[in-house]
Amino acid sequence: MDIFNKEIISAFYVTSLSRENPVDVLRRKLSLSSDYLTERIESLVENSFIEKDKKTLTELGRGSIRVVLAGGVFDIIHPGHLHTLRAAKALGNVLVVVIATDKTAQKIKNRIPLHNMELRRDLVSSLSMVDYAMVGHEGDIFKTVKLVKPDIIALGYDQIHQEKFIVDGCKKIGVDVSIARLQSPVPDIKSSKIESDYGKSIYGL
Amino acid sequence: MDIFNKEIISAFYVTSLSRENPVDVLRRKLSLSSDYLTERIESLVENSFIEKDKKTLTELGRGSIRVVLAGGVFDIIHPGHLHTLRAAKALGNVLVVVIATDKTAQKIKNRIPLHNMELRRDLVSSLSMVDYAMVGHEGDIFKTVKLVKPDIIALGYDQIHQEKFIVDGCKKIGVDVSIARLQSPVPDIKSSKIESDYGKSIYGL
Repeated sequence: MDIFNKEIISAFYVTSLSRENPVDVLRRKLSLSSDYLTERIESLVENSFIEKDKKTLTELGRGSIRVVLAGGVFDIIHPGHLHTLRAAKALGNVLVVVIATDKTAQKIKNRIPLHNMELRRDLVSSLSMVDYAMVGHEGDIFKTVKLVKPDIIALGYDQIHQEKFIVDGCKKIGVDVSIARLQSPVPDIKSSKIESDYGKSIYGL
Repeated sequence: MDIFNKEIISAFYVTSLSRENPVDVLRRKLSLSSDYLTERIESLVENSFIEKDKKTLTELGRGSIRVVLAGGVFDIIHPGHLHTLRAAKALGNVLVVVIATDKTAQKIKNRIPLHNMELRRDLVSSLSMVDYAMVGHEGDIFKTVKLVKPDIIALGYDQIHQEKFIVDGCKKIGVDVSIARLQSPVPDIKSSKIESDYGKSIYGL
């Protein structure tokens, strides 16, 4: 399948989560006329990748792309995040990132996040390798997994302890998923150095 | 001019800075076949927007897009940066961001930056509203201005004191540029609150 058809199918997948119109999203992203897009979409309907409603992917269509799910708090973006998210994106065609709710973030970090979940979602959405960023379901990661139905869940180097919990939970809800363990980011930057160098306000960074 | 032609002309402008092949960049960005692109580029040559070498914009072509230049240290990315960069991008078609060199960053912030200029450039490059991020010329902002030839220089809310210096410098090098003063970001987030909430290592954010 050519890259352009994969882009169209990926957009149909993403808009099934975002509830936007896939044609609007594709026109914005690829700067193309709707005539040209309509033609390509019709050919994907003929080849059974998209349902006749021109809104939903068929099983064949959904099976033709690999969806990767990653997650985190993302109070700011630093080079380690880029490293992790690029590695996650490289595992498939579509990268969905789930943002911890404010309550979950507080539990993970033991403090109130600097930015609320909507600002954190917006921050991650602005990264070019991220196809869709969504706020998670309060207290239940598997509701998000059931909605996204990822082919792969990518765990960051500091999330690896969650592997068994995630594998078991996915089995329970009947989602067949592979787990990828991503490597530690940017090896020459050490937290201890950051801590000693770091000033007071992040808005000065 | 339709949006697609504007994308092509913008890519020709950006690759004049990055020295990449514009067709490669466009194919990657828009997932299109090179046949389709070649056809569109030839029509832009016929209409005198692109030179006959198919590599350079004509004066008409360059005049058909507005280039905005913004700058900063960008040691991390936080929601305030998004606010500023989106406002800058909204002023034109192409947003170029100049990243302070490590020496300049140290002068501005009175400390060594957390991440070197190449990591900071990469961070800003990964933002979807940024068309091109480049490291500045050591100690001379006007070398960068002369290279980029922006139509607009966008100053952040904390860079406004530099306005007269920039206007005078641009006059000296004969670059005709407008200055835009961007508003303060996300008004409900106060630095004092951040400082009191903020933990130790940015890698925990």
